[in-house]
Amino acid sequence: MFSLTPVLVAVVCILIVWVFKNAERSHEQRKAEPQTTARARPWVDEDLRDGTDLHQEEEDTDEWQESEENIDHIPLSHIRYSEQEMTRRSQEFYELLNQRRSVRFISDEQVPMEVIDNVIRAAGTAPSGAHTEPWTFVVVKDPDVKHKVREIIEEEEEINYRKRMGNRWVADLKKLRTNWIKEYLDSAPILILIFKQVHGFTASGKRKTHYYNEVSVSIACGFLLAALQNAGLVTVTTTPLNCGPRLRVLLDRPTNEKLLMLLPVGYPSKEATVPDLRRKPLDQIMVTV
Amino acid sequence: MFSLTPVLVAVVCILIVWVFKNAERSHEQRKAEPQTTARARPWVDEDLRDGTDLHQEEEDTDEWQESEENIDHIPLSHIRYSEQEMTRRSQEFYELLNQRRSVRFISDEQVPMEVIDNVIRAAGTAPSGAHTEPWTFVVVKDPDVKHKVREIIEEEEEINYRKRMGNRWVADLKKLRTNWIKEYLDSAPILILIFKQVHGFTASGKRKTHYYNEVSVSIACGFLLAALQNAGLVTVTTTPLNCGPRLRVLLDRPTNEKLLMLLPVGYPSKEATVPDLRRKPLDQIMVTV
Repeated sequence: MFSLTPVLVAVVCILIVWVFKNAERSHEQRKAEPQTTARARPWVDEDLRDGTDLHQEEEDTDEWQESEENIDHIPLSHIRYSEQEMTRRSQEFYELLNQRRSVRFISDEQVPMEVIDNVIRAAGTAPSGAHTEPWTFVVVKDPDVKHKVREIIEEEEEINYRKRMGNRWVADLKKLRTNWIKEYLDSAPILILIFKQVHGFTASGKRKTHYYNEVSVSIACGFLLAALQNAGLVTVTTTPLNCGPRLRVLLDRPTNEKLLMLLPVGYPSKEATVPDLRRKPLDQIMVTV
Repeated sequence: MFSLTPVLVAVVCILIVWVFKNAERSHEQRKAEPQTTARARPWVDEDLRDGTDLHQEEEDTDEWQESEENIDHIPLSHIRYSEQEMTRRSQEFYELLNQRRSVRFISDEQVPMEVIDNVIRAAGTAPSGAHTEPWTFVVVKDPDVKHKVREIIEEEEEINYRKRMGNRWVADLKKLRTNWIKEYLDSAPILILIFKQVHGFTASGKRKTHYYNEVSVSIACGFLLAALQNAGLVTVTTTPLNCGPRLRVLLDRPTNEKLLMLLPVGYPSKEATVPDLRRKPLDQIMVTV
């Protein structure tokens, strides 16, 4: 029995060490988990990894109603058209939007700023969760700033293609080159960078949830794209990968704003071409019950 | 020393039990974590918890370019307006969209189906990540199906308000009642349920990633809202909480489709009112650099 005691003491010591090591490791694991997840998805926009807005949409009611307390309700003013007129208007509007194409060849000719003001005014009429209007439209005209935007995007794109994407992407070199060089960022007279405000601030400086901010800002971008097409301007819908934080800093936007979209805007250049695509016919996108 | 041995044995036993319990618990914790997270956010739409589409957007390139290989490129056809005409058109378009309001009082008068076809055609011209066109518009005209939609939404809403939301919501009973009863789901002649296809299928039946599907479908909803306004119809943007799975089954949509939005569509009823809201002025939403 005497000889067992040192063995027991040794066992106790080993167990104690193991317990502590185990506890430490499990603690480290827990800390490391989000990082591991991030590391496994190198192509995720890093700006989105902070998760600030991941569950912003959770706490809303289902209707996007404005904060209606203490606000008067007034009769709706509404223009009613004849059925013939409605059919004609809806047909013409479809034809207008159906002519819209994503255009990557944009001339350096200047566009009237009054038109840019109006298309952004139009975008600002979009509905938003709880009438938060969680959007900021940054209009870049300055050639130097446009060029800096281009540099940031091309730098990050190069890293995206060379490192972040892995073999799967490197295989398709032809397509890669097309994506990497973005001449339109210099040539287009206007870049519109659309930021979503993932949260706002109350009068007392507290965080104010911006319900459904990404969906709201995307709807506003829909209004903007329709307004540009209606005005005879062209653009291409882009979502620069991993460039959000640097572009946000370049443009001096606060941290509650995240880049959602970048639209280079102008007239098409004379040699502009588009892929000869078809859109799905109505019976492939609509179901009637 | 003899007397210490049983104490040591007891300590060893306790330690062994503790080590095993700890290992088990940490294992359980790891398993339980996702559930715990879900439980802590009871107001999250359950349909979104399956995470099918949480990171669909990750693997895209930044441009929403169509799959351009093997597709001919053709010259862009473009209508160029005079600057005066551009300014006039952009001003009128802004004024048209600025008259849009979210309307919750919808008359039961029928609307021309040709107009509904045209507004959905217009929505289908939206840009989408890699030209995947990841949208399905379900148009519900049948009064019985509309009523079933209403039952599902009001049932889930009642649970949302009574159980899922907690005290925070229950406090605001007045607002609650407004949200819970959705008469417009019966009265509106048309409900449009917009589903996002979180993935598609290749010709060989494999999953095909639908890049940026939620942003794409939201832009299409922007086109749809603009088209409805242009045609003289009214709606309210709703995102029924937790109703996605049941509505998907009711409408016989496949599992790769998730409900994004529901729009009741019609003419406003005679007594329709709206809150007397203001929109942010241009200088609060636009920054020029």
